[in-house]
Amino acid sequence: MPTTLDCLVMRNVFGSDRMRQVFDSRNMIQSWFETWACLAEAQADVGMIPAEAAAEIRAATRRDDYDAEEIGRKIATGRHFLMPSINALTAASGESGRYVHWGATTQDITDTGMMLQIRQAMAIVEPAAEEITAIVARLAARYRDQPMAGRTHWQHAVPMTFGFKLAQWVDELERHRERLARARADVLVAELGGAGGTLASLGDKADPVLDAFCRRIGLAKPGVAWHGSRDRLAALVNELGMLAAMLEKICLEVGRLSSAEIGELHEPRNKGQVGSSTMPQKHNPILCERSAAGCRLVRGMVPVMQSLMIGVHERDMASVAAEWLLIPQCFIVLDGSLQYTHTILSGLQVFPARMDANLGITRGGIAAEAVMFGLAQQLGRTEAHDLMVEVAREAMEQRRDLGEVLSEHPTAREVLSAEEIARLVDPTNHLGLSQRIVDRVLADRDARSGQA
Amino acid sequence: MPTTLDCLVMRNVFGSDRMRQVFDSRNMIQSWFETWACLAEAQADVGMIPAEAAAEIRAATRRDDYDAEEIGRKIATGRHFLMPSINALTAASGESGRYVHWGATTQDITDTGMMLQIRQAMAIVEPAAEEITAIVARLAARYRDQPMAGRTHWQHAVPMTFGFKLAQWVDELERHRERLARARADVLVAELGGAGGTLASLGDKADPVLDAFCRRIGLAKPGVAWHGSRDRLAALVNELGMLAAMLEKICLEVGRLSSAEIGELHEPRNKGQVGSSTMPQKHNPILCERSAAGCRLVRGMVPVMQSLMIGVHERDMASVAAEWLLIPQCFIVLDGSLQYTHTILSGLQVFPARMDANLGITRGGIAAEAVMFGLAQQLGRTEAHDLMVEVAREAMEQRRDLGEVLSEHPTAREVLSAEEIARLVDPTNHLGLSQRIVDRVLADRDARSGQA
Amino acid sequence: MPTTLDCLVMRNVFGSDRMRQVFDSRNMIQSWFETWACLAEAQADVGMIPAEAAAEIRAATRRDDYDAEEIGRKIATGRHFLMPSINALTAASGESGRYVHWGATTQDITDTGMMLQIRQAMAIVEPAAEEITAIVARLAARYRDQPMAGRTHWQHAVPMTFGFKLAQWVDELERHRERLARARADVLVAELGGAGGTLASLGDKADPVLDAFCRRIGLAKPGVAWHGSRDRLAALVNELGMLAAMLEKICLEVGRLSSAEIGELHEPRNKGQVGSSTMPQKHNPILCERSAAGCRLVRGMVPVMQSLMIGVHERDMASVAAEWLLIPQCFIVLDGSLQYTHTILSGLQVFPARMDANLGITRGGIAAEAVMFGLAQQLGRTEAHDLMVEVAREAMEQRRDLGEVLSEHPTAREVLSAEEIARLVDPTNHLGLSQRIVDRVLADRDARSGQA
Amino acid sequence: MPTTLDCLVMRNVFGSDRMRQVFDSRNMIQSWFETWACLAEAQADVGMIPAEAAAEIRAATRRDDYDAEEIGRKIATGRHFLMPSINALTAASGESGRYVHWGATTQDITDTGMMLQIRQAMAIVEPAAEEITAIVARLAARYRDQPMAGRTHWQHAVPMTFGFKLAQWVDELERHRERLARARADVLVAELGGAGGTLASLGDKADPVLDAFCRRIGLAKPGVAWHGSRDRLAALVNELGMLAAMLEKICLEVGRLSSAEIGELHEPRNKGQVGSSTMPQKHNPILCERSAAGCRLVRGMVPVMQSLMIGVHERDMASVAAEWLLIPQCFIVLDGSLQYTHTILSGLQVFPARMDANLGITRGGIAAEAVMFGLAQQLGRTEAHDLMVEVAREAMEQRRDLGEVLSEHPTAREVLSAEEIARLVDPTNHLGLSQRIVDRVLADRDARSGQA
Repeated sequence: MPTTLDCLVMRNVFGSDRMRQVFDSRNMIQSWFETWACLAEAQADVGMIPAEAAAEIRAATRRDDYDAEEIGRKIATGRHFLMPSINALTAASGESGRYVHWGATTQDITDTGMMLQIRQAMAIVEPAAEEITAIVARLAARYRDQPMAGRTHWQHAVPMTFGFKLAQWVDELERHRERLARARADVLVAELGGAGGTLASLGDKADPVLDAFCRRIGLAKPGVAWHGSRDRLAALVNELGMLAAMLEKICLEVGRLSSAEIGELHEPRNKGQVGSSTMPQKHNPILCERSAAGCRLVRGMVPVMQSLMIGVHERDMASVAAEWLLIPQCFIVLDGSLQYTHTILSGLQVFPARMDANLGITRGGIAAEAVMFGLAQQLGRTEAHDLMVEVAREAMEQRRDLGEVLSEHPTAREVLSAEEIARLVDPTNHLGLSQRIVDRVLADRDARSGQA
Repeated sequence: MPTTLDCLVMRNVFGSDRMRQVFDSRNMIQSWFETWACLAEAQADVGMIPAEAAAEIRAATRRDDYDAEEIGRKIATGRHFLMPSINALTAASGESGRYVHWGATTQDITDTGMMLQIRQAMAIVEPAAEEITAIVARLAARYRDQPMAGRTHWQHAVPMTFGFKLAQWVDELERHRERLARARADVLVAELGGAGGTLASLGDKADPVLDAFCRRIGLAKPGVAWHGSRDRLAALVNELGMLAAMLEKICLEVGRLSSAEIGELHEPRNKGQVGSSTMPQKHNPILCERSAAGCRLVRGMVPVMQSLMIGVHERDMASVAAEWLLIPQCFIVLDGSLQYTHTILSGLQVFPARMDANLGITRGGIAAEAVMFGLAQQLGRTEAHDLMVEVAREAMEQRRDLGEVLSEHPTAREVLSAEEIARLVDPTNHLGLSQRIVDRVLADRDARSGQA
Repeated sequence: MPTTLDCLVMRNVFGSDRMRQVFDSRNMIQSWFETWACLAEAQADVGMIPAEAAAEIRAATRRDDYDAEEIGRKIATGRHFLMPSINALTAASGESGRYVHWGATTQDITDTGMMLQIRQAMAIVEPAAEEITAIVARLAARYRDQPMAGRTHWQHAVPMTFGFKLAQWVDELERHRERLARARADVLVAELGGAGGTLASLGDKADPVLDAFCRRIGLAKPGVAWHGSRDRLAALVNELGMLAAMLEKICLEVGRLSSAEIGELHEPRNKGQVGSSTMPQKHNPILCERSAAGCRLVRGMVPVMQSLMIGVHERDMASVAAEWLLIPQCFIVLDGSLQYTHTILSGLQVFPARMDANLGITRGGIAAEAVMFGLAQQLGRTEAHDLMVEVAREAMEQRRDLGEVLSEHPTAREVLSAEEIARLVDPTNHLGLSQRIVDRVLADRDARSGQA
Repeated sequence: MPTTLDCLVMRNVFGSDRMRQVFDSRNMIQSWFETWACLAEAQADVGMIPAEAAAEIRAATRRDDYDAEEIGRKIATGRHFLMPSINALTAASGESGRYVHWGATTQDITDTGMMLQIRQAMAIVEPAAEEITAIVARLAARYRDQPMAGRTHWQHAVPMTFGFKLAQWVDELERHRERLARARADVLVAELGGAGGTLASLGDKADPVLDAFCRRIGLAKPGVAWHGSRDRLAALVNELGMLAAMLEKICLEVGRLSSAEIGELHEPRNKGQVGSSTMPQKHNPILCERSAAGCRLVRGMVPVMQSLMIGVHERDMASVAAEWLLIPQCFIVLDGSLQYTHTILSGLQVFPARMDANLGITRGGIAAEAVMFGLAQQLGRTEAHDLMVEVAREAMEQRRDLGEVLSEHPTAREVLSAEEIARLVDPTNHLGLSQRIVDRVLADRDARSGQA
């Protein structure tokens, strides 16, 4: 029976099926076959091997009737990770089998094959991140003007709009997308170096073979083989971890704002969903929690991948081999969180009435900064601050409205009229640039899309 | 097709089948069934539910004909992790199904079930660690007297014996085993608290039910439910990470000492083993590398698990859920490294001749400390040190034997005879307590085993 | 001007002065001096060096007039970490200076010296952890009966008491203390091995010198030198990280429960404290935040220390040297968080009225589990659960009290009387074993203290 | 007495004085003063405050006679991180003091101030990284043709040149520099948002003030305040960690290749340097070790910083405050490793004779791949591989030269002449593209510099 990410139970908590397919046994082996086919074709291109041989190898990679289970068994007994696949393709290629893996080293194939998988994986991750950004952007537009308490240090700070909160997410998500795109562009590099990276095994034609190989497989040409230089992979995994941290922030905030006391948001509820096995009233933000749990696991891999950069000598499988588990896990688990976040945001329940109501629970306190700045015009910042500390404390201790207490304060009354006080203590008069910033962030995003 | 730890390719690099079985879908579900059966029996013990109901539930958990795939599918659609299993057992229990999961909360079952799996997992890990220790101890006895260069800062420092190096590993391995045993004893605690940990759902009989439940399931009774206190799990995972670090140290040292230049050790070679796909002369210490790669992945989970201790309020699935992937991964990958290390050490190739030869490559330099202490008896530490710095530098620069250069140094000749110099520069005269420490460490180990 | 932990600004956010003293330059050097004095005395004990020499060296370590700045400068130019201190003590010891550092290697002194500092540090940490536990225990007793909403998944789950929440902390804190005590007992081991750990430099008298040294310095005798076995330190740092995680959980929970919407707790407020530079109404739980920030930094060192276990060959300063920064930082920052947590808890503001009020905000929903179990007595668990899902949803959608809606449900009315419904929907009737568990946890703690 | 990074002892192991200055107490406070001055000037620019007030505030920031110690003391008592500095500047600004900190929130000042420090820090890090790259590039050119064993899996793999190894470092270093430059460009953004990021406190003139502020302080304008969006900082710290990993790889490799058995490289030795306190022959690669130890500490901060991205609500000091220690530490420790690496590489001792000699220790085995490819031309890859496995094993077991054994093998003799065999087994005939790749990497670097 399957375990961990394939476990019949756990696969419904972590990961996504679409990403599992990218990193399953068959696609892994297939990505090696594709690499060998392109290598043979490149070698045929420069006349190193017969064109018919390349064609026969290519045909063999398409037969797709190799026995993945059998390959697995032979890996177990022979201790060599790639040999059983080399042998399978060699056998399937008939006479031309002798040209399979010509001049390559194991890591040329596994690294290039992994790049093909990463290309597919990024073709899932990047659109998923873009879709999430688009959803948040639409929400930001919709709730551009919806007032809400801005909270810092867990306390009410100043009023803002819900759109403004969302615009901050859009702004950050755009940066994650940009960094991801850069990391993807940087990482998609072919690997072909032979045993020591010097391409000695390809003789005089090494350079043209490398050129043709990169062209055929559609990956960038490396300045030098990267058997021992894993920085691009570390940079990529770091960006996956960064995106995970962003999703975690979003999902935890949605969960937090869905608490009984705040109640401003909630993840969408399924018809058939069971909230709790024993508490029928509960609607747990379970998608938020699962998503965040996945993100934590993804982030945990970032320092491991970074440590793998520090290999011994020219190549070191004590480092590189760990990538074979780490990279698939990272992508599979992250994509689960991407899908959860998509579901959460696309069906997000927003309760404007609660946002409005919560703005009032400090009885005007949330407007204290604004009042202070109003007073400071007349009194200077320090005196205004001290006055407001006094008034705010009194209001809190007596559980009275800030405006009321303020109206009774002699200095305040000297410099402010009753109308001014009323205007000042109304939170919705202190949204600042909330809306304008929403507009700007969305315009920036549109401009960027227009460019792209 | 399977992925990551189940992948047909990767499963031959990471993990072990025996540990996969502990954490596979069926055993996970079975551990929940066992928990429900014990709960029902405990409730019957105190007269809370009919004894027949408990018997019927127990029988249902033995039928073992539930459809794990179907349970998986329902988890996907219903969003609840446990409900489909509850329903499966309820259905299988006929009339008594109404008593399934009585008074329990989801986490009572998943936590207790996980403890049952951890108990099985530790029954693999601890004997495996003991076997490795036993092998190292036997090697330490065998190579008690084999001289070898002690290396610090990558440089030859002073002579020692290979047995002494191994005795250090034994000494440390014993501590890892002791800490693991403690962590295991601490962690194997039942969970039964109901929704908030207060056992409100069990009414007046809560306490006796808890007692009976713990007795029946064979786990310690918690002082208080640990839905939100994951420290014992974090302590356990930390010890798994510590053991991984130890295995990593051993495997990397074996690999390092098998380098072309040192050549003192080598992991065992298979008959059919292919060293390299292109370099026929190579015998890569591939088991060492795979083992170390696995250890790095295990260590990477330690800080993640520690971060999961910091949950929100009484319970927090954004923390707890991550354990469901992390714990199985940790055990499965670690056991792979345990098995590799076992294979490496039980068939370890030792090359005494190379150890002897390497002792000579510094041309007496490795004995310089001993010579210095010999001189210091007469000259004091500082003067002796300065003299030896001079002599050692000259010997190195002129590529001559230390003894030779020393014999020509006037001060040295004043205080040391030719025989004394000859004796002093022979590395095998400076093994210190190497052998005695081997004896002591092995005696300590025996004493401890005798006690246990 | 000072930086980081000594920075005039930052030192008021992170760390404590009492712990800075343990790890400052002078105490570090003094701990080496103490080690050298004990070594000389041990050597005099066994007749290896003259008793007068040991006495002179001991006297020199007491003069305390060495120039720490000058030692620092010489470390910079000579590249050797310890030589300037050896030279300072040698010079201060007159004729007997020749016996300073006799037969020892650098790491013997730095490791043993660090143990002396760790002994002092733990004499701060452990009582601090005990004091915090005692405060929480007192609070648990005081609020044993104060009802409060139990929250899981950020949602109200079931009622409990505030004392019950605190008892869970006591229970976990006791485990942290126990693990810390074990780790401290394990780690306080002397180091004396000479260059390769074989004690070759001490000749025949190596063993008695080691015995006498350990006795004089008051540290346990190592089975074998631990120059390359850093597991005990890693175990200690892990426990510091575990304690940090616990403090972080407590501080974040206090902060969270002090939010405007919940308002059940607050850290103590200073008279002169400025809440915010611009928001006069704010009373930020700034101690909670600083404490948690420190805890995060401490936890970040755990995996680093664990990685340092994996040294190269017999000794490896690329690993060991990192401890020299990591261990002091860990202790200094942790002690800051211990002090913050002490302040927070010893002056904790508790608002029982808010706890009572919050219990009602789900309009009976928080009692839904209890109602369900009441119904289940008659209807079975499944039917009761389905009924309650329906009733709870209706109550929520119509913003009505659960009891009201329940009273109108035909099935419910069949099996429950109006009084039974009224009793069932009152949260304070569903505290379960909250109070009894408080009593048990506190009794367990008392029993343990009695024993100790 | 100072501790940790300022400790008189430790400061000579970790960090650099030039970077300590960037992050010392005075420069931290000064960076806040600069921020306030620019803010006042920006507000004067748009007519929000009198030009004279801005001038007076600016003048006050230049007086530089504030008492940093006193500010520190007041932070301790008042619990507010910034207020004492605000008050100091306010007092120093006379009448205009009332305009200090106008409309700003604490984090506006601390974040912007930190950007000024990071700008200075990066002006040290980036040139240091460039200098190291330049040194490696010069070494690569010098040793372009020096043959050397390429080592994989700790074993000799194929021949290459030392220049080729260095070229790989250049290639990777260039990528680190590029990523650092990007991260720096991304991160240097001003912060000005007021309490909730909405700039409500600046009223109608918020936007023009923000524009003027960014222009005056020379930092980019944020799309939206980043009080709660720390991704740019996390991206920067990650790049610092990446660079640390690169330095660690270089330093560990230099140390490794300086081992007694390999002896191909050594870090420069000081005249007055003491190798070991007891082993006069030793020349420990202590700079390599210290540098690597520092790098590990830097890498340890990467996941912590990434976790700080996940703040609560709009702002969360439990996250942000940790940066105040983490960022300075990261830069200070990293710069120590940069300086060590610079010293190591600029004075690197290279021993070509040892490189030549080591190429021979496998008795032709290192050329086995080349021989196999020679044979494969005639026999096909599989048959050639099998033949070479046999020949290589025989050569190793009998400790004979590969060429000799090969000459006696009937199949080999059939397809290869004695001259061909002699040519094939000479490692220096199999350098592959080593030299051409050195040329290409250096040309790429030149081209990039030309562009820049």
